[in-house]
Amino acid sequence: MNKYLKLDEWKLIEEGFNPENQRGSESLFSLGNGRIGQRANFEEKYSGNSLQGNYVAGVYYPDKTRVGWWKNGYPEYFAKVLNAPNWVGINVWADNEEVDLAHVKVDKFTRILNMRTGLLERHTEITLKSGKQLRIVSKRFLSMHAQDIAAIKYSVTPLNFNGLITFLPFIDADIKNEDSNYDEKFWNIVEKQVLKNQAFITTETKKTLFHVCNGMIYNITKNHVTTDFEPELIVEEKFVANKIGVHANANEELVLYKYASVVSSRNIEKQDLLAYTKERVLWAAKTGFEILLNDHIAAWEAKWRESDIVIEGDIEAQQGIRFNIFQLNQTYTGDDPTLNIGPKGFTGEKYGGSTYWDTEAYCLPFYLSTADPHVARNLLKYRYNHLEKAIENAEKLGFKNGAALYPMVTMNGEECHNEWEITFEEIHRNGAIAYAIYNYINYTDDKDYLAEFGLEVLIGISRFWAQRVNYSEDKKKYVMLGVTGPNEYENNVNNNWYTNKIATWTLKYTQEAVAFVKKNHPARFNEILQKTKLQEYAEPSRWTDIINNMYFPADEKRGVFLQQDGFLDKEIQSTDFIPADEKPINQNWSWDRILRSCYIKQADVLQGVYFFEYEYDSETIRKNFDFYEPITVHESSLSPCIYSVVASKIGNHKKAYELYLRTARLDLDDYNDEVYQGCHITSMAGTWLSIVEGFAGKRVKDGRLHFNPGIPRKWLSYSFAIRFRGSLLSIKITRKEMHIENLNGKIAQVAINGKNFDLDIKQTVTVEI
Amino acid sequence: MNKYLKLDEWKLIEEGFNPENQRGSESLFSLGNGRIGQRANFEEKYSGNSLQGNYVAGVYYPDKTRVGWWKNGYPEYFAKVLNAPNWVGINVWADNEEVDLAHVKVDKFTRILNMRTGLLERHTEITLKSGKQLRIVSKRFLSMHAQDIAAIKYSVTPLNFNGLITFLPFIDADIKNEDSNYDEKFWNIVEKQVLKNQAFITTETKKTLFHVCNGMIYNITKNHVTTDFEPELIVEEKFVANKIGVHANANEELVLYKYASVVSSRNIEKQDLLAYTKERVLWAAKTGFEILLNDHIAAWEAKWRESDIVIEGDIEAQQGIRFNIFQLNQTYTGDDPTLNIGPKGFTGEKYGGSTYWDTEAYCLPFYLSTADPHVARNLLKYRYNHLEKAIENAEKLGFKNGAALYPMVTMNGEECHNEWEITFEEIHRNGAIAYAIYNYINYTDDKDYLAEFGLEVLIGISRFWAQRVNYSEDKKKYVMLGVTGPNEYENNVNNNWYTNKIATWTLKYTQEAVAFVKKNHPARFNEILQKTKLQEYAEPSRWTDIINNMYFPADEKRGVFLQQDGFLDKEIQSTDFIPADEKPINQNWSWDRILRSCYIKQADVLQGVYFFEYEYDSETIRKNFDFYEPITVHESSLSPCIYSVVASKIGNHKKAYELYLRTARLDLDDYNDEVYQGCHITSMAGTWLSIVEGFAGKRVKDGRLHFNPGIPRKWLSYSFAIRFRGSLLSIKITRKEMHIENLNGKIAQVAINGKNFDLDIKQTVTVEI
Repeated sequence: MNKYLKLDEWKLIEEGFNPENQRGSESLFSLGNGRIGQRANFEEKYSGNSLQGNYVAGVYYPDKTRVGWWKNGYPEYFAKVLNAPNWVGINVWADNEEVDLAHVKVDKFTRILNMRTGLLERHTEITLKSGKQLRIVSKRFLSMHAQDIAAIKYSVTPLNFNGLITFLPFIDADIKNEDSNYDEKFWNIVEKQVLKNQAFITTETKKTLFHVCNGMIYNITKNHVTTDFEPELIVEEKFVANKIGVHANANEELVLYKYASVVSSRNIEKQDLLAYTKERVLWAAKTGFEILLNDHIAAWEAKWRESDIVIEGDIEAQQGIRFNIFQLNQTYTGDDPTLNIGPKGFTGEKYGGSTYWDTEAYCLPFYLSTADPHVARNLLKYRYNHLEKAIENAEKLGFKNGAALYPMVTMNGEECHNEWEITFEEIHRNGAIAYAIYNYINYTDDKDYLAEFGLEVLIGISRFWAQRVNYSEDKKKYVMLGVTGPNEYENNVNNNWYTNKIATWTLKYTQEAVAFVKKNHPARFNEILQKTKLQEYAEPSRWTDIINNMYFPADEKRGVFLQQDGFLDKEIQSTDFIPADEKPINQNWSWDRILRSCYIKQADVLQGVYFFEYEYDSETIRKNFDFYEPITVHESSLSPCIYSVVASKIGNHKKAYELYLRTARLDLDDYNDEVYQGCHITSMAGTWLSIVEGFAGKRVKDGRLHFNPGIPRKWLSYSFAIRFRGSLLSIKITRKEMHIENLNGKIAQVAINGKNFDLDIKQTVTVEI
Repeated sequence: MNKYLKLDEWKLIEEGFNPENQRGSESLFSLGNGRIGQRANFEEKYSGNSLQGNYVAGVYYPDKTRVGWWKNGYPEYFAKVLNAPNWVGINVWADNEEVDLAHVKVDKFTRILNMRTGLLERHTEITLKSGKQLRIVSKRFLSMHAQDIAAIKYSVTPLNFNGLITFLPFIDADIKNEDSNYDEKFWNIVEKQVLKNQAFITTETKKTLFHVCNGMIYNITKNHVTTDFEPELIVEEKFVANKIGVHANANEELVLYKYASVVSSRNIEKQDLLAYTKERVLWAAKTGFEILLNDHIAAWEAKWRESDIVIEGDIEAQQGIRFNIFQLNQTYTGDDPTLNIGPKGFTGEKYGGSTYWDTEAYCLPFYLSTADPHVARNLLKYRYNHLEKAIENAEKLGFKNGAALYPMVTMNGEECHNEWEITFEEIHRNGAIAYAIYNYINYTDDKDYLAEFGLEVLIGISRFWAQRVNYSEDKKKYVMLGVTGPNEYENNVNNNWYTNKIATWTLKYTQEAVAFVKKNHPARFNEILQKTKLQEYAEPSRWTDIINNMYFPADEKRGVFLQQDGFLDKEIQSTDFIPADEKPINQNWSWDRILRSCYIKQADVLQGVYFFEYEYDSETIRKNFDFYEPITVHESSLSPCIYSVVASKIGNHKKAYELYLRTARLDLDDYNDEVYQGCHITSMAGTWLSIVEGFAGKRVKDGRLHFNPGIPRKWLSYSFAIRFRGSLLSIKITRKEMHIENLNGKIAQVAINGKNFDLDIKQTVTVEI
């Protein structure tokens, strides 16, 4: 826990410089625009503890797997998001004394991230060893309007001396990943060019051979007037720069405007890359900082219009939810189906930056509700495009006939993870990918997605389940042995209820999807039959057998589903019995002790109760919640949000709010002392869920958007926009009432507390709650 | 499978040079004398595929653990047997053409390991590229009489030319472990000395700071006459040598006698090491090759007298069992309680060369029966000396109050293994250490061992079990969750029958031991109470509760013990259903598939049935064998022997012999294509068990040595010596009769097929069978 940021509705504000917070602030103040992103490193040299981090979405490196004991089936490579060339750098000297905040007296320091505008600012005043004082003000943004462009306005003012200010704006390609398995550097240099006030460097990733071109152009003003100069041109092996000395008198302001472009061969052909990058950065420089910034702010305004949540009466909650929404929008914009949402986004390198089931289970609802449907559709297509790889992945494990197992972690569709209990066993992930198809169609009514892409994926996943179960002669039921559920504090268990549940559900949904596509898209259906070699009757008939005879562990006495076989053999004891100094248990207990304990890392049975809520009565939901909640330690950032939604559902509002608080400011207040590694991007969608599905009770039933609103005691009101089937709705919930306005689009079918309303455009409904 | 060795009762013979077999032969023809050991590398340079391997018992290096995903509780280091300086080297040139079997025509090649004498010989004739022909004959041994001494007789004869033969006898300390985690070299140089016909190098291991001094002295004869020469003295950074050119005419034989001494700071103080080594090697050179060899052979004769098994009518079996006994005697001689039996002995580096439960479960009976009792006692004391570390190890995992968990793999008492499912869960190993105490006392009647050392160990282990179980409210029984049994093809299971069994047995045996020591050694008992803080009544009383209420999974219908909870949910199918090209499954199936299958790697329930046979009637044993044997793949070298003993017990002689064959020539015929990594030393004791406990039915009951003899159909007879409570017995079993002669010692209480005989010295009994 580390609460050093000021409370503000729209901004993160850090006052005063504390080097111990630097790595954390670098994570929290990160910038991104879906295409490129970076940690909030200083422009000038900083020799203190820092993780220099620049990232280009989708540019990865398959680092050779490192493992203690190899098991058959492990993937050979672990794809990592690459730390990419650093283009923010502007080193500075005052009369040959280098500016480095680790070695000067910092007199004033304010860092501000304005989430409304996506602008990062820093105001610094320092005294050098010589006694010379300088003011440095920097502003920068990664354009949300032109996603290959970024700009920095870097201002230096000598405060108590006249002297030579030297600038070294550079691009540094001599970078490495902190998590490199073999201390290898992953980039080669392709070409470099340094001209007066310009520099370019094209780099190539080893193995994957992505090219990335970084270009910069800068100009310098003195007292707001552009000045000409003759820079020294610097070309080193992996480093390009200019060096310029400018004389300034006390209180004369020098401003270096640095325009950068980052373009990769994912978007532009390799042979055109340099020319294109030059053209873009020249355009940016010509357009100028202020206009670029205005366009950028306008793009953010559009995003906020559709995704903001306004909370009255709770500034901490307000800042928290905005930070989460801001980061989600920075990480994924949804226009490229080859991209996805890494668990750390652009804020760090941990977990390899690849795609997890988090996307389908946690993030999809956020993008469904706050962005154009093509954004969510692209998230689904990402998995469709990886279907072949998922089939190969299953084949590696011995599955046949087109069974598909989506990887636990991936960048290009291949499995990257290598713990057997996760890689081979945490197969419920496959179900989340099927569920996302259902969830998307249920929300958007885009049933044709099934014909176009969905059914093939569903068939692959269902085939996997049908092969993964076996018939137990002992139980006279189908069982699923050797799995790890979402609760990773249990490994290699039999009959994880959630996995059995989502598997069975997938088989049913696939049967429905087969019937739907056959009826409505017969030609496409035949294509799919040919492509997948689906035995149209035999396979679904086996699925029926499994559906009807699947085993689900349960405790009849307590009326709860059991997480897995043998769960009741454990000592069932509330988390209150864990001594405070032994929490979190994952940092204090040996792994075997965690495994033997009843303690649950994250929603497991409750994840199923959350997904399939409509199948259960309130009493069943309540009993499961009351059994599992007291033994859940929530040591995954993905846990409290689901519990919070379920708590709201059963009317346990106090618990719902308490659990909400655990996610809302997880990174801002650094609950787990780990924000230095980066932010928990995917769980941020969970915070949004806690409010919209939890407090406001949003559900889609029979094509209608239902709400069952509540409001935390501390809040005066909260409001948010939501997209639904062509309408954009504005929602406001106060302590007394719920208002819905249909802002634009089509007639909106909504319901509040079970009462239906068909809202015309601009129509409002208000209901007492 | 690779059968290239000739059949011979006493020798391994390799005819003709096949480079593809070189690494395998280096393992098979290994030499050792308990103190030092080495792979059968060539003396002269060999640039082909080879693993240069020299080892000094107990000299290890704690290599930094390498793991993909760290779990709390993993040990930081993995202690490895160190590849030590190579002292066998004698490079050779004929007129400046270097001899290297990878680059010459090999005209004749015979390699012979005489197991009776412990002498390794090689006869080679080669043609160099120049057409020059040479004969090389080498003989070498590591003295079993003087364990710090070794000698080589290396003879070179030019066959078709007169010329200059150059020898470079050397010691090379620039060596590394093939399995080094970070490609690090583990040795530093302390001092070097090179004189005319002598060289010494003292090395130090990093971290552990062992010193090892290697010394060599050589002399050269020409046509059997010692010749003087002026060698070039060579001192490189990690390499010391002499270089000598000697002129020889065709058919003139040059012989280089190289005497080596290897002494470590485990035996001699560091400051005395060089002087001592010099003294020893000078003594060796003075004594001369032939006398050293004679003493060595005499020592081997003594070993064979007590441990040989003679088989008439089956030369393959004869060679197989002798090879196993030879290797066991080379690996461990039992005079140093700080040493133990690594799974590869001195034949390779795999598995870190450390101590496993193999020692207690498989090797102990061999040494009990074939060596002085102090040898087995030293194996037990090894664990007593590690008790403190075992308590620390348990504490790391959260256990308290003196609970001891012996490590899965160790060199100095600390855990070295780092797979959670093994390190934290394969805890049955703890039981094997308790069982070994029982086994030793049952065999030797040395009950005082309990007071001296055994009880403390038993209390530590029992405390571990008492904390490791928990009471299941659901089952109303004690359960043991999250374990891995001996069958490592199941991980993290609940209620592994074998583990529950050996845990309960340990608690009972500890109670008996407490009572015994209290009664017979009251003063020592009080000491132990004080030292261990045992609550004399409370703790054993809790043990009683566990003993009386332990849960044991069983299938009443089949009348078998169940390997673990849920075992019957698997598809139970004979190993015959595994396609031939998918065997061994550990090389062909993904890990999850192996885990989900019913297939058993090695004796698990049957290990318990074997240990606690006396508790079960024959019908129970038979049912368990018949259930588990068909689903066991025996992919551990430790498996078939136990099954073979049990098969003999239930009269399934065909199966007993078939299973025996799987171990007897496992390495000689390289069943699993892995002998290049080294030999399976610990499982060799299992082969001995299959004969002595299996075919001959040896048991100790109520202080009497029982036999229940059978004989494989192919054999005419087999005979062996066995020590028992002060007697040395000679046993012979023919197709018709069993003879026992009490060779020397005390009156021997024996029984054949239930009939008792008290044999006086030199008395013989013969019984028809």
